[in-house]
Amino acid sequence: MEKTLIFGHKNPDTDSITSSIVMEHLERKLGNNEVKAYKLGKVNKETEFVLNYFKVAEPETLESIEEKANVILVDHNTFSQSIDGIEKANILKVIDHHCITGFETANPLFYMAEPVGCTETILYGLYKQHDVEIDKTIAGLMLSAIISDTLLFKSPTCTEKDVQIAKELAKIAEIDIETYGMEMLKAGTDLSDFSPEEIINIDSKKMEANGVNMQVAQVNTASIEEVLKDQDKLENVMQAFMKENGINLFVLLITDIVNSNSEAIVLGDRTDIAEKGFNKKIENNRMFLEGVVSRKKQVFPILIEFAK
Amino acid sequence: MEKTLIFGHKNPDTDSITSSIVMEHLERKLGNNEVKAYKLGKVNKETEFVLNYFKVAEPETLESIEEKANVILVDHNTFSQSIDGIEKANILKVIDHHCITGFETANPLFYMAEPVGCTETILYGLYKQHDVEIDKTIAGLMLSAIISDTLLFKSPTCTEKDVQIAKELAKIAEIDIETYGMEMLKAGTDLSDFSPEEIINIDSKKMEANGVNMQVAQVNTASIEEVLKDQDKLENVMQAFMKENGINLFVLLITDIVNSNSEAIVLGDRTDIAEKGFNKKIENNRMFLEGVVSRKKQVFPILIEFAK
Repeated sequence: MEKTLIFGHKNPDTDSITSSIVMEHLERKLGNNEVKAYKLGKVNKETEFVLNYFKVAEPETLESIEEKANVILVDHNTFSQSIDGIEKANILKVIDHHCITGFETANPLFYMAEPVGCTETILYGLYKQHDVEIDKTIAGLMLSAIISDTLLFKSPTCTEKDVQIAKELAKIAEIDIETYGMEMLKAGTDLSDFSPEEIINIDSKKMEANGVNMQVAQVNTASIEEVLKDQDKLENVMQAFMKENGINLFVLLITDIVNSNSEAIVLGDRTDIAEKGFNKKIENNRMFLEGVVSRKKQVFPILIEFAK
Repeated sequence: MEKTLIFGHKNPDTDSITSSIVMEHLERKLGNNEVKAYKLGKVNKETEFVLNYFKVAEPETLESIEEKANVILVDHNTFSQSIDGIEKANILKVIDHHCITGFETANPLFYMAEPVGCTETILYGLYKQHDVEIDKTIAGLMLSAIISDTLLFKSPTCTEKDVQIAKELAKIAEIDIETYGMEMLKAGTDLSDFSPEEIINIDSKKMEANGVNMQVAQVNTASIEEVLKDQDKLENVMQAFMKENGINLFVLLITDIVNSNSEAIVLGDRTDIAEKGFNKKIENNRMFLEGVVSRKKQVFPILIEFAK
C-alpha cells in the first residue's frame, strides 16, 4: 500500500505540528499503518518547548511531493499555504478549522471542518467517535495546540467546545493549564535567535481577494516595545518580501499575549484597505489594534471585505 | 433569531430534497428552530414518488436569497450548482459527498464531507453522533436517497457504509429494499410528460476545468432505445443550451438502471475530450459506456483530467 503523507501548513505552528502527529496516531489505531506525519518548515520555539516537554520527536521535513501522492491535510486547506504541487496530489482527508479558499479536488474526499479554535478540538471528536484512547502524550499535544491557537482561551476564535475539551485533556495529561500554558506561550515569544527575515516568516499567511495579494504575519510577544526596537529592520525585510512575491499589503501583527492586543506594522501600495477596514490612521507605518489577537477572525475577514 | 435556509443543488434529485428535509429535522431536534428546508427547482418523478410514499410535503421553492443570509448547503458545494448570489451568503454548514470545487468562505464553518455514495449516509452519522432518534419517516427518506444515488447499490460510488446504513434504515422504515427500490427507480424513469428541454434539465451539472465548460446531464431509464427515439430533438435542445451558456462539451448520459450501462450523446467543440478520456470513437454523436452509471465517479473525473 502506498504511503499517505500527513502535514499542516507552511511556517508551522503548534497546531499544525501536533495535529499531524496526532492524526498519524489516530490513523494507525484505525489500522492504516502506511501513514507518516511531516512538517513543512522549521518548528518554532513554542512547538519545540511542547515536543521537548512531552518527549515527542519532531516530524521530518517534507521537501516535495510526487504527483498523485496520497495526502491528509491538517490545519489548512488553502493550496498557497501548503506544499508546492499540492494541486496534483490525491487529497484523501482534510481536518481543519479555517475558512475554505482556493481548495479544489477532482475526487470526493473526507473533509471535516468546524468553526472552533483549534484543529485538535476536531481531532478530539474523531478520537471519541472511533473510540480510540487518548493517552497522556496525545492529550498533552492536543492541549498544547488548543492553548496555542486560543492564546490560553483569550482569542475570539476560542469556543466553549475548545475550553471544555482542553479541560478534559488537562486531566488526562495531568497538567495545570494556566501554569503550563503561560510557560509554553512565553517560550514561543523568545525571539532572541531569530533574524528579522525569520521573524516575519515564523507564522506568515498569504491571502488573495479581488486581485489584491495580502500577507499577514504574526509574532507573539510579552513586550511589543522589545519587538519594535527592530522596526526599521523588520520593515526592510517586509519590503523585500513584498517586492519578491508581488504583495500589495503586508501586515505584521505583533501580539501582546499578556494583555491581548496587537501592534501592526502595515506596508504596501494597498495600506488603504487596512485603514478603511480598521477605521484607523496608520502612523509611522503602525496601527494599534486593541483586543485584536486573531488573524483568522479579526484580521483576514476585514481585509478580505475591504479589498476592492 | 434569523432564519437559516437549508437547500441542495439546482435540478434537485432525491438526495438534495430529502437531505434538506432531514437536516431541518436534525437542526430542530438540536434546538435550532429557526431553520427551513427549501428546494432549488421542480422535484423529479422519483422524488415525487418518495414524498408521496412517506406522506411528506414538498419543500417550498427558494427563488432568491438576500446578502448575508444564513444558509446550510446539503448535497453540493460548488457555487455554480447553487442559488444565484450564494457567494454573498453566510454559509454556516455544508454536508456533502462531492469533490470540492469553486467553494470559498470568508469565515470558518462546519464542513462535513465523506467519500460515500449519498449525503444521507453522512447525515445518519450526525444523527447517531447527537443521539437523535431516526423515526420511520426520516429513515424512509434517508433510505430512498441512498437507493437513488447508488442505483440500488450498483453504482461505483456506493460504499460498504452506504449499504450497511441502508440496511439499518430499511429495518426502521419497515421496507423491503429491493422491491421498494426498483419501484422507486422505475417511477423516476417515467419521462412521458417531459419535453426534450426538460429531459436535459432533469439532472444536469456544469463543471469547468482548464477553461473548458462542460455540462453533463443524466437521465435514468429502463430502456435506452426508448429515449433514443428522440435523439434528434434532444440534440437540438442540447445545441441550443450550449450556445446560450457557452458550453464546450455537453454529455447526456442515458443510464440503463436495469443493466447498469449508459449510452452518451456527446456534442460540442471539445468532444475530443470525451473520445480521449473514454478511449472510444463517437459515432452518430453517441458513445456506449459499458458499466458507467456514475457521473461523479466515472465521468467528471475523466473529463476534468482530459480537459487541456
